[in-house]
Amino acid sequence: MKAVRLHRYELRPVVEEVPEPTVTGPFDVIVRIGGAGLCRTDLHIVEGQWEPKTHVPLPYTLGHENAGWVHAVGSAVEHLQVGDAVILHPLVTCGFCRACRAGDDVHCERSLFPGIDTDGGMAELIRTSARSVVKLAPGVEPAAVAALADAGLTAYHAVAKAARLLRPGQFAVMIGAGGLGHIGIQVFKALSAATLIVTDRNPAALALAAELGAEHTVLSDADGSHVDAMLELTGGQGAETVIDFVGEGGATAEGVRMLRRAGNYYVVGYGENINVPTIDIVSTEINFIGNLVGSYTDLSELMVLAAKGKVTLHTTKYPLDDFQQAIDDLDNGRVRGRAILIP
Amino acid sequence: MKAVRLHRYELRPVVEEVPEPTVTGPFDVIVRIGGAGLCRTDLHIVEGQWEPKTHVPLPYTLGHENAGWVHAVGSAVEHLQVGDAVILHPLVTCGFCRACRAGDDVHCERSLFPGIDTDGGMAELIRTSARSVVKLAPGVEPAAVAALADAGLTAYHAVAKAARLLRPGQFAVMIGAGGLGHIGIQVFKALSAATLIVTDRNPAALALAAELGAEHTVLSDADGSHVDAMLELTGGQGAETVIDFVGEGGATAEGVRMLRRAGNYYVVGYGENINVPTIDIVSTEINFIGNLVGSYTDLSELMVLAAKGKVTLHTTKYPLDDFQQAIDDLDNGRVRGRAILIP
Amino acid sequence: MKAVRLHRYELRPVVEEVPEPTVTGPFDVIVRIGGAGLCRTDLHIVEGQWEPKTHVPLPYTLGHENAGWVHAVGSAVEHLQVGDAVILHPLVTCGFCRACRAGDDVHCERSLFPGIDTDGGMAELIRTSARSVVKLAPGVEPAAVAALADAGLTAYHAVAKAARLLRPGQFAVMIGAGGLGHIGIQVFKALSAATLIVTDRNPAALALAAELGAEHTVLSDADGSHVDAMLELTGGQGAETVIDFVGEGGATAEGVRMLRRAGNYYVVGYGENINVPTIDIVSTEINFIGNLVGSYTDLSELMVLAAKGKVTLHTTKYPLDDFQQAIDDLDNGRVRGRAILIP
Amino acid sequence: MKAVRLHRYELRPVVEEVPEPTVTGPFDVIVRIGGAGLCRTDLHIVEGQWEPKTHVPLPYTLGHENAGWVHAVGSAVEHLQVGDAVILHPLVTCGFCRACRAGDDVHCERSLFPGIDTDGGMAELIRTSARSVVKLAPGVEPAAVAALADAGLTAYHAVAKAARLLRPGQFAVMIGAGGLGHIGIQVFKALSAATLIVTDRNPAALALAAELGAEHTVLSDADGSHVDAMLELTGGQGAETVIDFVGEGGATAEGVRMLRRAGNYYVVGYGENINVPTIDIVSTEINFIGNLVGSYTDLSELMVLAAKGKVTLHTTKYPLDDFQQAIDDLDNGRVRGRAILIP
Repeated sequence: MKAVRLHRYELRPVVEEVPEPTVTGPFDVIVRIGGAGLCRTDLHIVEGQWEPKTHVPLPYTLGHENAGWVHAVGSAVEHLQVGDAVILHPLVTCGFCRACRAGDDVHCERSLFPGIDTDGGMAELIRTSARSVVKLAPGVEPAAVAALADAGLTAYHAVAKAARLLRPGQFAVMIGAGGLGHIGIQVFKALSAATLIVTDRNPAALALAAELGAEHTVLSDADGSHVDAMLELTGGQGAETVIDFVGEGGATAEGVRMLRRAGNYYVVGYGENINVPTIDIVSTEINFIGNLVGSYTDLSELMVLAAKGKVTLHTTKYPLDDFQQAIDDLDNGRVRGRAILIP
Repeated sequence: MKAVRLHRYELRPVVEEVPEPTVTGPFDVIVRIGGAGLCRTDLHIVEGQWEPKTHVPLPYTLGHENAGWVHAVGSAVEHLQVGDAVILHPLVTCGFCRACRAGDDVHCERSLFPGIDTDGGMAELIRTSARSVVKLAPGVEPAAVAALADAGLTAYHAVAKAARLLRPGQFAVMIGAGGLGHIGIQVFKALSAATLIVTDRNPAALALAAELGAEHTVLSDADGSHVDAMLELTGGQGAETVIDFVGEGGATAEGVRMLRRAGNYYVVGYGENINVPTIDIVSTEINFIGNLVGSYTDLSELMVLAAKGKVTLHTTKYPLDDFQQAIDDLDNGRVRGRAILIP
Repeated sequence: MKAVRLHRYELRPVVEEVPEPTVTGPFDVIVRIGGAGLCRTDLHIVEGQWEPKTHVPLPYTLGHENAGWVHAVGSAVEHLQVGDAVILHPLVTCGFCRACRAGDDVHCERSLFPGIDTDGGMAELIRTSARSVVKLAPGVEPAAVAALADAGLTAYHAVAKAARLLRPGQFAVMIGAGGLGHIGIQVFKALSAATLIVTDRNPAALALAAELGAEHTVLSDADGSHVDAMLELTGGQGAETVIDFVGEGGATAEGVRMLRRAGNYYVVGYGENINVPTIDIVSTEINFIGNLVGSYTDLSELMVLAAKGKVTLHTTKYPLDDFQQAIDDLDNGRVRGRAILIP
Repeated sequence: MKAVRLHRYELRPVVEEVPEPTVTGPFDVIVRIGGAGLCRTDLHIVEGQWEPKTHVPLPYTLGHENAGWVHAVGSAVEHLQVGDAVILHPLVTCGFCRACRAGDDVHCERSLFPGIDTDGGMAELIRTSARSVVKLAPGVEPAAVAALADAGLTAYHAVAKAARLLRPGQFAVMIGAGGLGHIGIQVFKALSAATLIVTDRNPAALALAAELGAEHTVLSDADGSHVDAMLELTGGQGAETVIDFVGEGGATAEGVRMLRRAGNYYVVGYGENINVPTIDIVSTEINFIGNLVGSYTDLSELMVLAAKGKVTLHTTKYPLDDFQQAIDDLDNGRVRGRAILIP
């Protein structure tokens, strides 16, 4: 079969023939790929940024946002049928450690991460585990949702966690209305009646935010004056919740200033440090909440929102063979929405 | 009446005669002081560290840890009787703002803080509000519990919050077994069956920690080797919870290393910054939880533990007239347990 | 001033002149009534059904759903101004008991209930406490929201409680789409992305339910066949949540059959008994959750939804002088939506 | 191997030779039994009471409270070693349904229940799944904890759920200090600082309750006067929590009378109906909480308490061959503590 393989860091991956994956364990599932998302993480992998963390042996197949149809199942798999349309949770988890038992499978003590530390989904077929397969509702096209498997799942996880604590009349500030943010806005509007304020440096992103239902949008200024605008919108007290999809370029310091006493700061984007005096954390009793990708259950819930049309994505599709074009477009900011490779 | 008055920063406060406070509002309560705690915050006030925050007009009366007996009540107070033994929540709160309505009175939008920004309890009488008065169970002596009104309440608040999330088989690390820590240990043992590990630089503090029920104690080393010892005690994974009563001298960086994936770091002590890369917060999905003094309800619960003998304090009593001796002893580390002034 | 007074049970109340209420306590608030809801509870009061519970001395003024403008305030009230548009929480609470301190003011140990056990709001003026006054957002007309003060608040309380536990892909069944139910549907759609199924015996009520956003509606049949229809809609497993606004005529037995394992049954309407074998409660691990009227905070949140246009009521307005006509219309089912008396 | 086999309802099971179970699936685990609990449920099975629910084909092997050592594992089992000392969760669950994914494995949609609907552990060997095996801490003897696998786990589950909501100063009433109750008391004392009141008809059971740490014990009277005694202990307001291990003979009606406004009634024992007017549920806003056996995670936590010596059981051991004697003793009330069969 064809697959996008990375042979050497800093060299472009190539589309080449590789053997098909096969069922080797009782809970293995082989999925025929309907769409594989291509994102900036893939650029970082090619640059070698992930090598020190994963030590993945080269060559290997990229692709960590995958959806398609069940192609073959292991001997012990009873709840999946060949042909089922599915999306894949990004991790392959053990099911037995304490985290897996509690539904926090993202913290599995023995997980694999296809496309990152083992063969991924930019290929005709991928091998995963029955534990990672979420069935799609009738009418949901795998290629249309593939990019929700990682970026969308991260946004869902953070926003759903925040929404559980928010009440009508309270405020949430979202920093960043880009790739994750514009999914986050849709999730927020589906789950919460609190008031949403979105800030971004890009006026076009803010226009989209308003269209998706943000009650207020504030252009982020280099001089930080948008922080004052935010505070004014919240009656001078700050927002109960800040969800930070940026995490760099000074976003965190500004975000903390927007936070109300006893407020929660959800860290999603990353780059810089959270660097706050403990006296401030104590005297205002604020919290910083880390957010990784969501759980299997989170992905199931996000797929419900997608099936109901409450979360949609702009995508640009490329045949798998046009991988070079796709990564070129991504690298040069020419992709509208998310790039999806179709084998 | 006699009161300990601060006339000028950097000069020792003096015991002098002042007019007695009187009931002026319908919910005012005048309390005859049975004991007023003296703590390091009082030293910091005298040094002028709090002036930029409070702008309190001098002279004023110190004392923010107060207990005694009801002496007089305002016209609208129905649930308190003259003579009731009581402890005072450190804040005087409004009862009408959103925080007060929800029981988070610590975040009251219009609170006063007797002893900090208005006249406190190092005196024969203090004026407070009916909203701040917790009745003591029969047999509980005001002077014995006064020091729980602020330091103890802070420890209770943080530990009770942590205990609600902990389960048998999980681990909590407490950094610091001093003033707050030794109360925190007692609260922890009363509220949780999780395993408690205590670290401190002082072997005597660790001996007390073990006596109070800590399952493990680890001497804190300048070289950070105690972090490895901690990790080993938790099977290499770190603790679900770190409660940091120190917050300076490198404690936070060490504490973060002791934390398990998805763990919670309770910030109580302060001094240095929380300074952690967002990538680490995201990839391990850890949280930082701020902790201020507890609520009125927290203080009521702490008084139940005190009445049951589950939380006890060592105290050294000084007549109010011996204030100079008391503050001298405190400043020179000669107080065993907590210093209590008795009018 | 004019007021609707009940002089004797089973006799129609009359509109007559009474002295105006005056400020007597420091936190008293006199409100000029903009609208007072009239509901079936008022019929039951007249019939004498409430007498054994309240022992209220006759004559007294009816009216337990009240909104208007602040007319006068007691000496200690600082956060309200004469002229403020307000809605009144139905209870007058003490602010000092444990329930009040925790925000559960509905369980206040010393509450009054104007219109039920003391003079209510079918009058030009009413006396309440500063603790019971919720300010309205600009543009919200008191008469338009008055009926949310009790019936609407009850629906909000139950639905918001249920919504906190529901996730996308889960099901909620609402039994009854009448007075409370049609508010409950609006609240549900504002707060939850779970799938809503509504059942009622009245096709017109179901049509309104669908218009308000219920994904499925099922006509309730005397033979109970709608229970099977419900089960089919939930894939045979039942709903995670049943919210029962009826509570009589066999609704509870049917509702329990619609419940999924580990599901929650919210009891709101009343009349018959919950009568279920403990073996069934244990073997399916279901819960029954009681629901009284909401708290002050609940009412504040509901007013936010009303101000955003997410919850609206049909009302029919009557001048206070036409009370006889209004109660006649109500008694004979001729009121469209809720009857509101305007002084 | 030897096994206790039921051949016909109402006839005593017999000890006989049967083939050893073998590994047939990848996650199968064969456990050599160290101890199998015998309880009243076994009597009910023999009487035929469970037949309509399980339709289990006869003959089959009894025994639903099992502990021992790993004897053999399937090809996909990596986290267990032959020889590991283990206790078995009573259910064999699928791991893939929504309940299993969320850690609520007790509500697995495809579970088996060895000893109830398939071969159990009154034998030399039992077959279970890797998902059901909890490793024991060093020094914990399987036969000493076997009876915690079902009865103990049920008590733990209910009490731990209740303890999470209780605070110091609040009250819990436990109805019944027998088999489940005396474990429940130990669990309660380990997990909560609330005040525990225990009621039972048997003075000896109450003496044990007091010894285990119940603050108050009240003899249950046929005339219901103990309800008044309870209310007096709680200041006339009732208890925030009632945990009912009896569920028959009028216990539920009495229990409801002991409940405070907004209180929670935990249904554990069963026999009679919960039969309460909805008006009472609504006007006091009380809840009824169903409780089945605990989850895998619950069992892991209970084993931690057992390893720490916080939960202990009185047991009487019988060789497997003496099954007839054991069941005779049980049937005639001659077993002190729990009967354990040792192969």
